[in-house]
Amino acid sequence: MIGASTDQLKTGYVILRNLINGGFRGSIYPVNPKASEILGLKTYKSVDEIPNQIDLAIIAVAARNVISAIDDCIRAKVGGIVIISAGFRETGQIGTELEEEISERVKSSGIRTIGPNSAGIVNSSVNMCATIEGTPMKGPVALLSQSGALGGATFGWAEDVGLGFSKFASIGNMCDVNFNDLLEYLAQDPETKVITMYVESIGDGNRFVAVAKNVSLVKPILAYKVGRTGAGQRATLSHTGSLATSDNIYDGAFRQAKIIRVYDAEELLDYAYALTHQPLPKGGRVGILTDAGGPGVAATDACTLSGLEVPELPDSIQTKLKQILPPFASTKNPVDMTFSLNSKLYQDCIDLILSENAVDALIITITSHLEVQQELANTIVASFGSGGKPFLVSWTASRAADPARGILRRRGIPVYSTPEKTARALACLARYSRSVHE
Amino acid sequence: MIGASTDQLKTGYVILRNLINGGFRGSIYPVNPKASEILGLKTYKSVDEIPNQIDLAIIAVAARNVISAIDDCIRAKVGGIVIISAGFRETGQIGTELEEEISERVKSSGIRTIGPNSAGIVNSSVNMCATIEGTPMKGPVALLSQSGALGGATFGWAEDVGLGFSKFASIGNMCDVNFNDLLEYLAQDPETKVITMYVESIGDGNRFVAVAKNVSLVKPILAYKVGRTGAGQRATLSHTGSLATSDNIYDGAFRQAKIIRVYDAEELLDYAYALTHQPLPKGGRVGILTDAGGPGVAATDACTLSGLEVPELPDSIQTKLKQILPPFASTKNPVDMTFSLNSKLYQDCIDLILSENAVDALIITITSHLEVQQELANTIVASFGSGGKPFLVSWTASRAADPARGILRRRGIPVYSTPEKTARALACLARYSRSVHE
Repeated sequence: MIGASTDQLKTGYVILRNLINGGFRGSIYPVNPKASEILGLKTYKSVDEIPNQIDLAIIAVAARNVISAIDDCIRAKVGGIVIISAGFRETGQIGTELEEEISERVKSSGIRTIGPNSAGIVNSSVNMCATIEGTPMKGPVALLSQSGALGGATFGWAEDVGLGFSKFASIGNMCDVNFNDLLEYLAQDPETKVITMYVESIGDGNRFVAVAKNVSLVKPILAYKVGRTGAGQRATLSHTGSLATSDNIYDGAFRQAKIIRVYDAEELLDYAYALTHQPLPKGGRVGILTDAGGPGVAATDACTLSGLEVPELPDSIQTKLKQILPPFASTKNPVDMTFSLNSKLYQDCIDLILSENAVDALIITITSHLEVQQELANTIVASFGSGGKPFLVSWTASRAADPARGILRRRGIPVYSTPEKTARALACLARYSRSVHE
Repeated sequence: MIGASTDQLKTGYVILRNLINGGFRGSIYPVNPKASEILGLKTYKSVDEIPNQIDLAIIAVAARNVISAIDDCIRAKVGGIVIISAGFRETGQIGTELEEEISERVKSSGIRTIGPNSAGIVNSSVNMCATIEGTPMKGPVALLSQSGALGGATFGWAEDVGLGFSKFASIGNMCDVNFNDLLEYLAQDPETKVITMYVESIGDGNRFVAVAKNVSLVKPILAYKVGRTGAGQRATLSHTGSLATSDNIYDGAFRQAKIIRVYDAEELLDYAYALTHQPLPKGGRVGILTDAGGPGVAATDACTLSGLEVPELPDSIQTKLKQILPPFASTKNPVDMTFSLNSKLYQDCIDLILSENAVDALIITITSHLEVQQELANTIVASFGSGGKPFLVSWTASRAADPARGILRRRGIPVYSTPEKTARALACLARYSRSVHE
C-alpha cells in the first residue's frame, strides 16, 4: 500500500482500513516514509524495504509522485499494480501526458496495471478489499466500473437483497488493463456467475465486441452505459476523460456481443440477482398467477412488451383450475385466483400452471397479503425447484412485507416491487437463454 | 353497511373493521338479518330499521341480492351507494344483464353509485375508510383505481415514504359514477393536490379528454394505464370486463388532456410525491450537484432524455466554485465536488449553483456517504426553500442511508434510489409546469 496514510480522510488510510476490515488473507505492507505504524500494521519507508515478494502494489500517492512509485514497483518486480491516484487524463493536457508516460512505463515492464483514477479492486476469494468503496458481501456478481462510487453504493444495496460480489474493479482511466482484459479474466473465474459493467466509454470497440461475444457464451454480461446524450458525454469528459461515441454505436456493439443493456443501477442489480439465482427458461412462455386483476394485467403487458408470451393455458389445465378456484376467478392466464388467504390453493395453482409443460416460467404477483405473508412465502419456496423452471415474484406492498420477501430471497427467488420489474427480469433470463442457444 | 358479516374473511366484515380502525367520524349501521352485534356495533335486520338518514350505503351482499339491496336504499333515500359485490359484467352475459338492471335502477333514482365490483372508497376528511384495502395515511394524493388491490398495496408503500391519501375510489365496473364524474369532483376537493389514476379502460373518451383537460389546469393528473398489449387487453376483459382500445389512442387522449402517463406503480408514487411536495420549476434548466462522476453523468443523460436541459454554468459562478472546490472537481454542470465529507462545502455549492438564476431546479446525487449522512441531509434541508426552486435528491445506497432519507422526506424533499428516477420525477414537475402555463 504505497501512500498508506494516517489521515482518516485520505484514500491511503481508507483502503488500508478496508483491507483489514475485509479480512484479507495475505500480508499487508503499508509504505509511508514518516509513520512507523498505521492501523496496527508496521509501515515501511519504501518498497525496497519490504522483505517479501509483492503480489500487488496499490499506489495512492499524489499524481506527481506516481512515476517514481511505479519505478519502485518495477524494481521490486511486483505482480501487479493498481493506481488509485487521480489527476491524469481526466484533468487536461498535462495530466494526459503524465498518464501516457505511466502507460508506457508499465506496458514495457509487463506489469499489468489498473488505473490511474481507480477506486480500487476487490477479490472476494482471498477477502481482498483493496478499495475505498468498502467491503462487499461475497457472492457471484463481478462488477467492472468506470465509477468507483457506483461500486460502493451498489455493494450495500445488493447486500440488502442478499446479493454479493466475487470481483470488483474500478478500472479508472485504463492506462493498461481495460474492459477486454478483465472480461477475458472473468470468463475463466469460477466464482463469477454474471458480469456487470458500468461503462462511460470503451476504448477498442472492435476487439471489445469480439471478446465480449465469446464471454457472453460462457456467462451473461450486463452493461449499464451512460453518456447516452451529448450533455451526458460532455460530463463523462470531466469524469474519466473518456471520448464519446454515439450511443447507437454502443447499442449495436452490445447487441452484436450479446450483452444485455440496462438503464439504471437498479436494473443492474435486479437482473444480476435473477441471472445468478434462477434457472434459465427453455422458452419464452410465461404463466402468471395473481391475487388481483390489475397486477396480472400489468404483468401480461410487461411480459409481452419485453418479448415474452403469455399463452392461454390448455383446456385440460383450465378445467382443473376451475374445480379449485372460486367462481369469479379467471383461469386463462393470467390465472387470477382473486384474493385468497389459502396457501394450499396457491400451491395447487402453481402445480397446475406448471403441469403439461404449458409454460417455461412462472411469475407470481402478490399485492399486500400481509396477514399470511410468511405462510405464503413458504408455500412458494416449497413449490420452487422441482420443475427446473424459473420463479419470479412481484410483491407490491409496504416494507411490512419484508419478512416474506426475505424468505423468498433466502431460497434465491427474486422478488421485486412491481409486476413490470418482475417481467423485465424474466425477459432478461429468457433473452440470455436464447442467446446461448442460438 | 349492507351485508355486514361476522366472518373475518368476508368483505362485509373487513370493511366494517376498516371503518372502525380508520376512526370514522360518523355513525356506522351494520345491516345483517342474523347477527345482533358485529365488532361492537349494533346491527340492523334491514335498511328500513335504521333510525337516521343514511349518507352512504355500502353494499356487500351476494350478486343476486344486490338489486333488492338497491331497492331498500332507494326507499330509504340514501345519499349515495358503493357496490362492493362482484359477479357482474366481468363474469359474462348473465352478469352483464344484471349490471345493466342495476345501472338503470340507480340512474333513474338519481342516487349516485360507485361499482359494482368496487373495493370501496376512502374519504380522509372524515376518516372514512369504507374499503377492503385498509386505512391509508392522510395526505394530498387522490387515487382513482380500476384495481382495488393496487390501492391497498400503494397505501402502505406510500406511507413508507411519508405520502398520504385524501380520497380513494376503487371505481369497479362503473355502472354509474365514472372517471369523469370523479375527476370533476376531485378538481374541487381542497384536500387533493394531485390526482392519480390506475386505468384499464375509460368509457367515454371524448368527454374524458374534455373533462381531464380542464381538471389538469387546476391540479396534475397522473395515469397508470394497463392493457397496453393485446394479451394485456384480453386479461382486462376477465378483470373489469373492460373493452379494449388501442394503446395509441390512450396515448393521444392523455396528451390532449395534459395527463402525465406513468408506467408502473412506483413512478405513480414517485411523481405524486414530487408534485405534492415541491414547487414547480419556472423552466427546464437543471443544476446537478454530485459527489461522484458516474451518477452526475447518469443524471445528465436522464435529464436530457426527459426533455430537461443541463446548461453549462456561467463563468462567474464557475470561478467562485473553483475557489472552494478541490483541483480535480468539475464546475461546469454537473458540478462534481468529488467525494467530500464537508457539509459546509455542500451548502456553498448549492448556494452558488442556485445564484444568478442560472438554473430552474436542483438535483443532488449522493452515493453512499453514510459516515455523515444525517449532517449532509440536514444541510440540504437547510438550503432548501429560499429560492423557491425544486430540490430533488438521488441517494444511491443501502438501507443504512434511510435515516438521512427520512430527514429529507420530513422536509418534503423527494429522495430516490437512482439519478434516473430523480431526473424523471423532475421532468414530470417541469412538464406539468409547462402545461399549465401554455
